[in-house]
Amino acid sequence: MPLEATLLLVLDLVGTFAFALNGALTALRTARLDIVGVVTLGMITALGGGTIRDVLLDSLPPATFVDWRYLAVAAGGGLVAFVFGRHLERLNTPITVLDAAGLSLFAVTGASKAIVLGFGPAQAVIVGGITAVGGGTLRDVMIRRIPFVLTSELYAIPAFIGATALVVLSRLEVGVTAAAITGAALCFAIRMLGVRFGLNAPYPLAPPAPTPDDE
Amino acid sequence: MPLEATLLLVLDLVGTFAFALNGALTALRTARLDIVGVVTLGMITALGGGTIRDVLLDSLPPATFVDWRYLAVAAGGGLVAFVFGRHLERLNTPITVLDAAGLSLFAVTGASKAIVLGFGPAQAVIVGGITAVGGGTLRDVMIRRIPFVLTSELYAIPAFIGATALVVLSRLEVGVTAAAITGAALCFAIRMLGVRFGLNAPYPLAPPAPTPDDE
Amino acid sequence: MPLEATLLLVLDLVGTFAFALNGALTALRTARLDIVGVVTLGMITALGGGTIRDVLLDSLPPATFVDWRYLAVAAGGGLVAFVFGRHLERLNTPITVLDAAGLSLFAVTGASKAIVLGFGPAQAVIVGGITAVGGGTLRDVMIRRIPFVLTSELYAIPAFIGATALVVLSRLEVGVTAAAITGAALCFAIRMLGVRFGLNAPYPLAPPAPTPDDE
Repeated sequence: MPLEATLLLVLDLVGTFAFALNGALTALRTARLDIVGVVTLGMITALGGGTIRDVLLDSLPPATFVDWRYLAVAAGGGLVAFVFGRHLERLNTPITVLDAAGLSLFAVTGASKAIVLGFGPAQAVIVGGITAVGGGTLRDVMIRRIPFVLTSELYAIPAFIGATALVVLSRLEVGVTAAAITGAALCFAIRMLGVRFGLNAPYPLAPPAPTPDDE
Repeated sequence: MPLEATLLLVLDLVGTFAFALNGALTALRTARLDIVGVVTLGMITALGGGTIRDVLLDSLPPATFVDWRYLAVAAGGGLVAFVFGRHLERLNTPITVLDAAGLSLFAVTGASKAIVLGFGPAQAVIVGGITAVGGGTLRDVMIRRIPFVLTSELYAIPAFIGATALVVLSRLEVGVTAAAITGAALCFAIRMLGVRFGLNAPYPLAPPAPTPDDE
Repeated sequence: MPLEATLLLVLDLVGTFAFALNGALTALRTARLDIVGVVTLGMITALGGGTIRDVLLDSLPPATFVDWRYLAVAAGGGLVAFVFGRHLERLNTPITVLDAAGLSLFAVTGASKAIVLGFGPAQAVIVGGITAVGGGTLRDVMIRRIPFVLTSELYAIPAFIGATALVVLSRLEVGVTAAAITGAALCFAIRMLGVRFGLNAPYPLAPPAPTPDDE
């Protein structure tokens, strides 16, 4: 395997581990889960985005499902969260940084895959964003939380910006690697600025009056 | 493009816009969402049913994902809901009518696609219904609401009736266009009667005793 | 059709009926549903796991969607729950036993399908488990309940053990039928022991401190 491919694989596995660990810890903070729940939700957070990507791109079976290394690393992240739980709280900052790295990587690799398979720019940007935030969204739905990506923080927006940068740059003859690194760096920088300064995406100015919950 | 195909495309895009707008407004009434949430939920409402349809019919990538016009119109519907919000409240009636038109169109086009691809009548009816109500169901799950299609109103039932009419008529040599128009008109009429008179689907006579929520 | 295939089909349809009936009754205990909701949730419980399996195995359209007998039996299970509701409460024990039989059968047939299609052992075990518990998980998400498979009881674990037994034994030249029967029997026995003695999967020793719900 050439050096570049090896590096990409390692980065992708690191991102997968970070997503699984962070996803399982987030789930544990919200719901009382047993070992099946913790590991499953870690795996769904890490692998769910790529699975939706591969459904939309007609690239089944999902790449991360076929490759046992992704399954093992994702399960490992969930198990670490199960075993160590609150002892990982002091590692919040490095986990957030790793999660932002995973977000950037997934946005860029998702968009790249769409381009390689011949999809257009709009599709590539959407798929990049879904690859990055789809897993966390599925996790939140399963623990009965409105997906935080829909309600607050800058999380999907950096992913879409990173994917857009990749799509634009890869049309400008700057080389795929340079385009990917720029897109990922942009996503990472915006995400970390959002975390640091507590930024949120814009809210509607005139939301309609709420209706009482129908139950 | 022949006139009939152009007309169908325009109708389909109008239905997509209506679903996105109505879906995003419904989401906004239930949950506090940022711009990512509003646009995403509008797009999911408009495109989710067709995506499930294409998974079940092995027709990936989803047709509405490949065609950027559907993506643009769906995103536009979500953005209009984000920008104008409660100022659209006075348009409730036309939006409900447009939504019923989208329901009818999606039920009929979903069932047609199944027939064209060689699936049986039961599959065509089911897929017609899912195309029509699948997107709203996904939206409700994401905003943590029991999908209203499962609990009240006449919404899925007109879609199933319209799809059934299409399936039956298209076997009776009445011509595809006549079958589609009849199915859509039937769905639309029943849906609007249901709205007008506040009709609900039947409830069970002897529901089992509720168990306390397990948390 | 040879005798063995007929027997397997009958067993599979019995499992499907049991899942639909039990799934619809569970949904009815938690939420106020109309006839669309009861039948839909019964069908999702019965057919959802196999649908996710066929997405992951790139075996679309889903087998149970193509075969109208599965659709009919699943809809029938939901309708029985709708019509008889609480009058079925006295049948709780046989329904639980039938559900455990369905769980065992689905775990084993799901894992077998993965093996037949050339997937590896890890994929086969995961798919076996998902086939068995996926439908109930989707149902719980739709009625706004944290999937019970993630929080309590022994439900996924017997399915994974049964699938693992099948995978291991089918590599040991014991014959596919013997491997399947052993795997299913193991799953069934562990599930029924879990029900009888109220066993749960392990909980984390040091869960992180809960964060207040974000709304």
